Amino acid sequence: MRSVYFTPGPSGLYYTVEHHLKTAFKSGITSISHRSNQFKEIFKEAETNLKLLLQLPDNYQLVFTSSATEIWEKLTDSFINTRSLHIVNGAFSNKFYKVVNNLNKEAGIIESTWGTLPEFASKTDKTYDLVGVTHNETSTGVKTPLNQLYRLKEQHPEAIIAVDAVSSLPVVDFDYTKLDTVYASVQKAFGLPAGLGVWLINDTAEERARKLSEQGVLRNSSHNIISLIDQARNYQTPSTPNVLAIYLFSQVVKDMIDRGIEQIRNDVIYKSAIMYNMLDKHSILKPFVTVKKLRSDTIIVVDSGSKTSQLLTYLASHKLMVGDGYGKMKGKQIRIANFPTHSKEQFEMLVDLIEKFE
Amino acid sequence: MRSVYFTPGPSGLYYTVEHHLKTAFKSGITSISHRSNQFKEIFKEAETNLKLLLQLPDNYQLVFTSSATEIWEKLTDSFINTRSLHIVNGAFSNKFYKVVNNLNKEAGIIESTWGTLPEFASKTDKTYDLVGVTHNETSTGVKTPLNQLYRLKEQHPEAIIAVDAVSSLPVVDFDYTKLDTVYASVQKAFGLPAGLGVWLINDTAEERARKLSEQGVLRNSSHNIISLIDQARNYQTPSTPNVLAIYLFSQVVKDMIDRGIEQIRNDVIYKSAIMYNMLDKHSILKPFVTVKKLRSDTIIVVDSGSKTSQLLTYLASHKLMVGDGYGKMKGKQIRIANFPTHSKEQFEMLVDLIEKFE
Repeated sequence: MRSVYFTPGPSGLYYTVEHHLKTAFKSGITSISHRSNQFKEIFKEAETNLKLLLQLPDNYQLVFTSSATEIWEKLTDSFINTRSLHIVNGAFSNKFYKVVNNLNKEAGIIESTWGTLPEFASKTDKTYDLVGVTHNETSTGVKTPLNQLYRLKEQHPEAIIAVDAVSSLPVVDFDYTKLDTVYASVQKAFGLPAGLGVWLINDTAEERARKLSEQGVLRNSSHNIISLIDQARNYQTPSTPNVLAIYLFSQVVKDMIDRGIEQIRNDVIYKSAIMYNMLDKHSILKPFVTVKKLRSDTIIVVDSGSKTSQLLTYLASHKLMVGDGYGKMKGKQIRIANFPTHSKEQFEMLVDLIEKFE
Repeated sequence: MRSVYFTPGPSGLYYTVEHHLKTAFKSGITSISHRSNQFKEIFKEAETNLKLLLQLPDNYQLVFTSSATEIWEKLTDSFINTRSLHIVNGAFSNKFYKVVNNLNKEAGIIESTWGTLPEFASKTDKTYDLVGVTHNETSTGVKTPLNQLYRLKEQHPEAIIAVDAVSSLPVVDFDYTKLDTVYASVQKAFGLPAGLGVWLINDTAEERARKLSEQGVLRNSSHNIISLIDQARNYQTPSTPNVLAIYLFSQVVKDMIDRGIEQIRNDVIYKSAIMYNMLDKHSILKPFVTVKKLRSDTIIVVDSGSKTSQLLTYLASHKLMVGDGYGKMKGKQIRIANFPTHSKEQFEMLVDLIEKFE
């Protein structure tokens, strides 16, 4: 038996990836020109499939990058003229905040301790060009409730609302009309090999970037947002892209459409429910996030304290690989990914084993 | 029979790639954390293997990017304080020149018509921060003779000599002591799927970049050269990288070491010789590059004029895929890649078929 990866990303591959990879090799997709019509068809199909899976409004444009981390810099360059605001409650939201700081923009911060979510401002504030928020903090397993997420747009009517959905897409059913730009990596809940970032940009955000470009604030780089969008409208990319990854992405998204996104989302909720239920009753382990409405469905963080290493070894002996705690929580917590590729049967087995751990 | 891709890149995969891909899947490499020791070992092995294959001096550092095109911008930011000089003799050398211009640096140019190489300056010139030269112009099939390439360092003692070796590595045996930074893509002569750039940087170049960083000329970006180098010294990357591509790269480089780089280089020269010999005698086709010492071994460009489409169809009917002319030469030329993955037998078959074309 191969190991099952419940690691928070890179994670287990979606179960159809290996099949699509074989097809890609047989049909020579790894050798086609990225300027060919054949590539354009692949890009176009990826876009069509993703728009269908996510029910993405027509005013959103999909562009590909090589990672989500790279998008933090592009968000800074594309949308921040003067200052941004960052909701920080873990390592990844903090990294975006630092990227903005390092690029000499004025970055404001609303911060909370790990495992919680800070209070969002309650009154209207028009001083920020961008508000950065992480829907699902992969380091802590805290999710931002959607009603809170959507209020950001009302509170900051002038800002571009930029949502880190790295470990949320395609599991979370966002109302995209209440956001401006959303980005993700494919090696998390899409179940693909690392090396591709997925960036969704609405027309308001695009307009803002074009304005900053005209003003000379946004550099005339061949990989900037304008170039990415203009190329994407022709199903092209500025550089030779990871063609294979785009093909695999397109195919896996199609498989998810065929399986039914409702089914996928219900399965994730079922799996998260049985895991949290068991953890709430466990004799020595407990969920890190105590407020139930903040508990992420896709990244479940467990306080395992001094038992962490023993727990990781125990699960690994059953070929079940989970993640260690992130950063300062390394050796004190485990992190369990609950993605579409993880079957209910695999998850039930994992829950049973953790339940028996003492 | 599967098609054989003699396209100039993406091109045919190195014949061991499929095997390594299977191993990668079985061993779970697509699911490992890029912060794990297992990943560090993969990166380290890739570096060790490449240094051995290329006989790279110890004062060179390897970093990975997602493409070579991306490196043009990084070269601009990392090394050019005021002005650069560009040897331009085709589409790709010209693209680098344009990237520098677009980023508001003062870019000088020495230009020649396609199919030739301009005269390099003969006297010492200390006014440039960087000299950009393309060893092998993938658009035209012109190579820069190594003695001319090496003279650039003497002529421009203050400049970083930056060599586009996109369709040259690992076939060309550079004397790296006479250059400062060299970059390539893996989807050309390395025979790998697109989605990874390979960037070699010597200590002189690194020092220059660190100076520009201290002076505030180089932005404090998490993906700038300093971050890439610092992370690479610890076998890490700033973003989640294309782990699978780095693994495949490492393994293919090892296979090339085992086969023997001398053997690989001799085979390429043999194949290019039989192709050019045939073309020189052909009744209707002729090599685009007339000066023999400028003829690229790895990218062979053929003037096929009004017969181009017919020739492409004829070869495709034999499952041999070659490239169309680039840019303005589309429909007037064909381009044939001669990479390590193309066997002598395959090449002889291609030569025979082209010889019979009329």
